[in-house]
Amino acid sequence: MSALSFSKISASLNAVLAAIGLVTVAALTTPDMTGQTRLVLEALLAGIWTAYSLQLIETLTMQRTRDVQGRTLEIAVDVLAVLVPLAAFFFARGRDQSLYCAIWLLKPLRGSTFFRLLGRVLTKEARNLIGVTSIFGIVLFGAALAAYIIERDVQPDKFGSIPLAMWWAVVTLSTTGYGDEIPQSFAGRILAGLVMMSGIGIFALWAGILATGFYEEVRRQDFVRNWQLVAAVPLFQKLGSGALIEIVRALRPRIVPAGGIICRKGETGDQMYFIVEGRVSVATPNPVELGSGSFFGEMALISGEPRSATVSAATEVSLLSLYSSDFQMLSSSSPEIADIIRKTALERRGTTPKG
Amino acid sequence: MSALSFSKISASLNAVLAAIGLVTVAALTTPDMTGQTRLVLEALLAGIWTAYSLQLIETLTMQRTRDVQGRTLEIAVDVLAVLVPLAAFFFARGRDQSLYCAIWLLKPLRGSTFFRLLGRVLTKEARNLIGVTSIFGIVLFGAALAAYIIERDVQPDKFGSIPLAMWWAVVTLSTTGYGDEIPQSFAGRILAGLVMMSGIGIFALWAGILATGFYEEVRRQDFVRNWQLVAAVPLFQKLGSGALIEIVRALRPRIVPAGGIICRKGETGDQMYFIVEGRVSVATPNPVELGSGSFFGEMALISGEPRSATVSAATEVSLLSLYSSDFQMLSSSSPEIADIIRKTALERRGTTPKG
Amino acid sequence: MSALSFSKISASLNAVLAAIGLVTVAALTTPDMTGQTRLVLEALLAGIWTAYSLQLIETLTMQRTRDVQGRTLEIAVDVLAVLVPLAAFFFARGRDQSLYCAIWLLKPLRGSTFFRLLGRVLTKEARNLIGVTSIFGIVLFGAALAAYIIERDVQPDKFGSIPLAMWWAVVTLSTTGYGDEIPQSFAGRILAGLVMMSGIGIFALWAGILATGFYEEVRRQDFVRNWQLVAAVPLFQKLGSGALIEIVRALRPRIVPAGGIICRKGETGDQMYFIVEGRVSVATPNPVELGSGSFFGEMALISGEPRSATVSAATEVSLLSLYSSDFQMLSSSSPEIADIIRKTALERRGTTPKG
Amino acid sequence: MSALSFSKISASLNAVLAAIGLVTVAALTTPDMTGQTRLVLEALLAGIWTAYSLQLIETLTMQRTRDVQGRTLEIAVDVLAVLVPLAAFFFARGRDQSLYCAIWLLKPLRGSTFFRLLGRVLTKEARNLIGVTSIFGIVLFGAALAAYIIERDVQPDKFGSIPLAMWWAVVTLSTTGYGDEIPQSFAGRILAGLVMMSGIGIFALWAGILATGFYEEVRRQDFVRNWQLVAAVPLFQKLGSGALIEIVRALRPRIVPAGGIICRKGETGDQMYFIVEGRVSVATPNPVELGSGSFFGEMALISGEPRSATVSAATEVSLLSLYSSDFQMLSSSSPEIADIIRKTALERRGTTPKG
Repeated sequence: MSALSFSKISASLNAVLAAIGLVTVAALTTPDMTGQTRLVLEALLAGIWTAYSLQLIETLTMQRTRDVQGRTLEIAVDVLAVLVPLAAFFFARGRDQSLYCAIWLLKPLRGSTFFRLLGRVLTKEARNLIGVTSIFGIVLFGAALAAYIIERDVQPDKFGSIPLAMWWAVVTLSTTGYGDEIPQSFAGRILAGLVMMSGIGIFALWAGILATGFYEEVRRQDFVRNWQLVAAVPLFQKLGSGALIEIVRALRPRIVPAGGIICRKGETGDQMYFIVEGRVSVATPNPVELGSGSFFGEMALISGEPRSATVSAATEVSLLSLYSSDFQMLSSSSPEIADIIRKTALERRGTTPKG
Repeated sequence: MSALSFSKISASLNAVLAAIGLVTVAALTTPDMTGQTRLVLEALLAGIWTAYSLQLIETLTMQRTRDVQGRTLEIAVDVLAVLVPLAAFFFARGRDQSLYCAIWLLKPLRGSTFFRLLGRVLTKEARNLIGVTSIFGIVLFGAALAAYIIERDVQPDKFGSIPLAMWWAVVTLSTTGYGDEIPQSFAGRILAGLVMMSGIGIFALWAGILATGFYEEVRRQDFVRNWQLVAAVPLFQKLGSGALIEIVRALRPRIVPAGGIICRKGETGDQMYFIVEGRVSVATPNPVELGSGSFFGEMALISGEPRSATVSAATEVSLLSLYSSDFQMLSSSSPEIADIIRKTALERRGTTPKG
Repeated sequence: MSALSFSKISASLNAVLAAIGLVTVAALTTPDMTGQTRLVLEALLAGIWTAYSLQLIETLTMQRTRDVQGRTLEIAVDVLAVLVPLAAFFFARGRDQSLYCAIWLLKPLRGSTFFRLLGRVLTKEARNLIGVTSIFGIVLFGAALAAYIIERDVQPDKFGSIPLAMWWAVVTLSTTGYGDEIPQSFAGRILAGLVMMSGIGIFALWAGILATGFYEEVRRQDFVRNWQLVAAVPLFQKLGSGALIEIVRALRPRIVPAGGIICRKGETGDQMYFIVEGRVSVATPNPVELGSGSFFGEMALISGEPRSATVSAATEVSLLSLYSSDFQMLSSSSPEIADIIRKTALERRGTTPKG
Repeated sequence: MSALSFSKISASLNAVLAAIGLVTVAALTTPDMTGQTRLVLEALLAGIWTAYSLQLIETLTMQRTRDVQGRTLEIAVDVLAVLVPLAAFFFARGRDQSLYCAIWLLKPLRGSTFFRLLGRVLTKEARNLIGVTSIFGIVLFGAALAAYIIERDVQPDKFGSIPLAMWWAVVTLSTTGYGDEIPQSFAGRILAGLVMMSGIGIFALWAGILATGFYEEVRRQDFVRNWQLVAAVPLFQKLGSGALIEIVRALRPRIVPAGGIICRKGETGDQMYFIVEGRVSVATPNPVELGSGSFFGEMALISGEPRSATVSAATEVSLLSLYSSDFQMLSSSSPEIADIIRKTALERRGTTPKG
C-alpha cells in the first residue's frame, strides 16, 4: 500500500476510530458491566491504539516537506495519541487507565480544513473576543457582588459570599438557569432580570463578532481558491483584470467524483460548466469526452432549451459553473469571450447536439 | 377542474390540512376522550388522507417535464403521505394507528422555496457546520469526562459514569439547564461555568456561519431574479454592463395582485415603477391602462410633487420599483435613459396628469 | 402653544407616560395595598388618560397631509389609547378596570423609526422567517411525538399524550429548561440532546436571517439618507457619478444640537466637516460663523496639525464628516475638489488660523 | 524609569492587578477564614491600592496633550480606583470595607481598543438597540399581563399580581427557565411557548443588529489603518486611486516583535511582505538587512519555489503581506508595479538567493 493512499484512508478513518474509542471509554466507566464485556472493550481500545501507532510510524516516515507548520501539529497529535495511553497503561490506577484514551478527542483536529479556518478567524478576531470575554467577566463579578449585597441576609446559605453568588451569576448570565439558587427579594429579582438581559447581549456580541470574522475569511478563501482555478482555464486568460475579478466572484467551483452525473438530458439548465481538471463524458448518440479547458452546457444558457444530453464525470472532475445571470454579465463585459462560447455552441449544434 | 388550478389550490391547502391532521393526531393521544369524539377525529384523519390521495393521483398524472429533481422529492412526499397511514391502518396496533399520520409533517417541505434556499445554504456551509458540530461533540465529551472525574465521588448517582455525566454536559452546554444534575464541588462549578461559556461560543459560531451563508445566498438569489426581470424591460436594454449591474442591484421587485393599489393620489412618492408583466390602471379623469414595458410614478421623483393619481393593478402585475436616490444614480450614469424618462414625464404632464 | 411644538413634546413624553402608566397598572394588581394608595394610583391613570385624550384631539385636528400611511397607524394608536380605558371604565369589572390601560403598550410604536425599519426587514424576510417558524413547528411536533412514544410508559403523568409531551418539547427546544419534565430513559435523553442542538440551530437560523435582513436594509437606508445630504452640498455637485457614489458611502452624517462642541482646539483631528444645514461658530480671536455649504476642519487632514480652534454649533447643525483616509480617496478620484479644499485651507491659514 | 516605559508596563499590569484584587475581594467575603489569612489578603489589597496610587500620580503628571477625550476617561478611572477604597477605609463598616475595591472592575476599560470599538458600534446602533430593548419591554409586560390573567386563579401565590408574573415572564423570555414558576393551565402553557419563541426572536434581533454594526465598523477600521500603512510604502505611491483602494483592501498588516521569524527556509510561501517600519534580517550566507520601504518574499509568488532563506525581525517590524492571488490582481491592474517587483526579484536572484 503506497504512503499516499494509506494517508487518505487514515484521514477518513481517524474520526470513526476516535468516535468508537471514545464511546468505548465512556462505556467502560459504567458500573454494571461484567468482566467479560470489559475485556472485549479493552481489546477494542488496544486495537485502536495499534492502528494509531501504525499511523504515527507512517506520519513520521512519510516524506512531505511542504506545509511544515501543519505537519508539526499533525505529528504532535499522533505522538500524543500513542504515548498518553501507553504511559497510562504503565503508571495509572487500574480503573482509570482507559480514561487516558480520551486524548483521542484531538484526532479530528488533524488535517481538518475547518479547524484551520476557525483558527484564522479566532486569531483575527482575538482582540475583540478577548474584549467580549472580559466584559463577560466584569458583568459576572459585578452581578455576583450585587447579588451578594442584596441577598446575603435573606439567603445566607446561597448568597453568603461572593464565590457562592458567582455560581448564581454564571448560571443566570449564560441563561442556563438551573434553578438551584434564585433571588427572593424584589431588588434581587430586578438584578436577575438585568443579568439575563446582559447575558443575551453578550451572546449577541459574540455572535456578531464571529459572523463578521467568518464572512470576511470565507469570502477571501473562496476568492483565492477560485482565482487559482480560473487561471487554469485558457479561455479566461484573455480577460482584463476588472472582468477577471468579476468572473472569479461569479464562478462556483464544484468537484464531481468519477461516474457522477453533472447534468441530465431534459432538465432545464441554469448554468454552464468549465472543466478545470479531469474528463467528462457526454452521452450523445456518439459519446464524446471533453478534457480540462473545455466547457459544456452553454446551449441551455443561450437558447433556454432543456439539456440535450446527459453529462457525467469520466474521471474525478473539477468544474467551475457559471450561472445564467453571470453569463449575461460576462457577455456584456467581455464580448469576445461570449462570442467564442456562442460560436462553439453553434458548431456543436451542427454536429453533436448537446445542452 | 384543470390540473394547474388544482395544483395551485392544493399547494395552499397542504399546510392547512397538515396542521389540522397533526392537531388531530395529538388530540387522539389524550386519555380523557369519549368514544364518539374519537370517531369524529378519526373520520377527520380519513378525510385528510383522501384529499392527499387525490393530490397524489394528480401529481402522478400531471405533465410537468421541467424541474425533474424538485418533482422527485414532491412525488416521494406525496407517496409517503398516502402509503404510511395506509400501511399503519392494516398492520399497526389499534391505539397507535393514528400516530403514523405524523408523516404529514413532511408535507410543508413540498414546493417550499425556503426549504430549497435552506438546502443550498446548508450544502454550501456543510463543511463548516460539520466542523462546529464536531467541536460541539469534542467539548461535550471533554466536559463529561472532566465532570465524571471531578464529581464521581461526590455524587455517584448523578456523575458515576461518563454517560451519566454526558447528560449533565449536554443540558449545560446547550444552556438548557434543567437543574436535575448540578455539580456540587468548587472545581465542578468552575467547570460548569466554562462549559456554559463554551456553549454560548458554539451557539455564536453556528449563528455566524449561517448568517454568512444566508447573506451570500440571498444576495445572489436577488441578483439573479432581478436580472431576469430587468432584461424584460425594453428601456434598460440600452444600458452598458456596469450600469446594468448597478440598476439590477437598485431595483426592487414587487408583485401586486389584481385590484391592489400601487400608489395613492396625494401621497408623497419616493419611487417610480417599471411594469415587467401585467397591466395597471391609472385613475385619471380619463382612466388609462399601461402594459408591460411602461413605467409610471416618475413625476414624483423629478418634481417632488405628491402623486397626482391613484394607480391600481388591473391584472396581477409584476413591477420593479426604483427609489429616488437610485434614480439620481441612474441619471448620472445613463443620461440617455434619464432623458427618456424626463421627456415622457413632460409629455404626460401636458396630456394626462400623473405622478 | 403651537401644534408643532406640542407634537414634539408629546413625542418625547409618550414613552415616559406609557412607562408610568404601565408601572401603575402593575402596582394596582398587588394585593397588599391600602384603599388610599389605590386611589392615588387610579388618579395617576386618569391623569395620563387625560394627557392622551389631549394628544388625540391634537392629532386629529393637526394638518399634516403628507405621510398618510404613517398617520393612519398613529391615529389608530391614539384612538385606542383613549377609547379602550374609557370603555373599560363603563363596562369592566371593578378590579380589572385598570388592566385595560395596558393598551398603552402600543404608544411607543407611534412615530418610532426603528419599528418602521423592523417592519421593512420583517416584510422582506417574511418568507424565510415563516420558513424557519415552520421548521420550528415541525421539529417541535416531531420531538413531542418521539418523546411520547419513548417515555409514555415510563412517566405517563408527564409524557402520557402528545400535548403533554409538547410542553416538554417547547421548553427544551427553546433551551429554556424549566426542569419540570425530564426524560428518564436512555433513548429519551439522547432525544433531548438532539432537540437541544436543534434548538440552537434554529436560533442560529433566525439570527442569520435577521442579520442579513438588517444589514441590507441599514446599508440601503444610510445610502439614501446620505445621498440627499450630499446633494445639498454645492462642492459635491461637480462630481461624476462614480465618485459621487464613493463619497456618499464615505461621508458620515452627524447632527449636533445648538451649543454642542464639534471639535476642540488642541485635539488631533482625523476628520473634516461639511455643513448641510445650520450654522457653526469658530472660536478664533475674531469669531467667525460658517453656514450651510461651507466646510471646516480640513487643515487637520492636510497638515496633520492639532485643531487650531474650537468649533461649536451656533444653531442645530447637520454635518457630514469625511475621515482622513476618505479624504485621500477623494483627492485621487476628484483632484479638482481636493484642490478647492486645499486652496481654501491655505487662504484661511493666511487670515484666520483654523484646523 | 521613563514615563513611557512605566506607562507600557502599567498597561499590561492593570488587568492582572485588577484580577488579583477582585479575587481577593471575593475571598474576603467567605466566612470560613482565619484572622491571619484575612490579614494577608487585606495587605494584598493595600499593595494593589499603592500600585494604583502610583499609577494615578504618573497619569496626572505625564505630558500627553493628544487624545484629550481618551485621557479624561483614563484619569476618571484612575482617580476612582484610588479614592473609592480610600473613602471606604475611613467611612464604611468594618466587614464591607474591602467590597469597595470592586471599583477596580473599571480598570480594564482603561486604554482598551476593544471598548472604543464597542462604544462606536453601540453609539451607531443606539437607536436600533433601544428599539429592540423597548420591544423586549413591551413583550415582557404583555406576557406578564397575560400570564396574570390566565394563571391568577390557578396559582395565586405565583401569578397573583403583575410584578409576580413579570418575574416568570423575564425568566422565560430570556430562556433562562429557573423552573420556580411554571404555568399549569393549558392556555398558560401556550402563552409560555409563545414567550419562549419571542425570546429567541429578540435574541436574534440583537445579534443581527450587533453583527451588522460590527461588520461595518471593523471593515472601516481595517481600511483606515491599512491606508495609512500603504501610504508609507514608496512603491505604492504611483498607483491610481482605484488600484490603491484595491491594494488597501488586499494587504494584511502584521506586526512581528524583534527576533520573530517571518518566514522559514524551505516552506512554501503564499505571500510576500512590504516593510512599513523597522528592519528585517535575511539569513543568507552573507546576511542582509532590509529597512522600511523594502519588500521580500516575492520569489515564492513568481516562481512557486520554497522560501530560499529564513527572514527574521531585526527590530520590531510592521509589515504588510500580499497574498499570491492579490499579487496577480496587482499584476494585471498595475503592470508597472509588478514589473518593479519582478525585476528586483531577478536582480536578487543573480546576487543573493532569497524567496
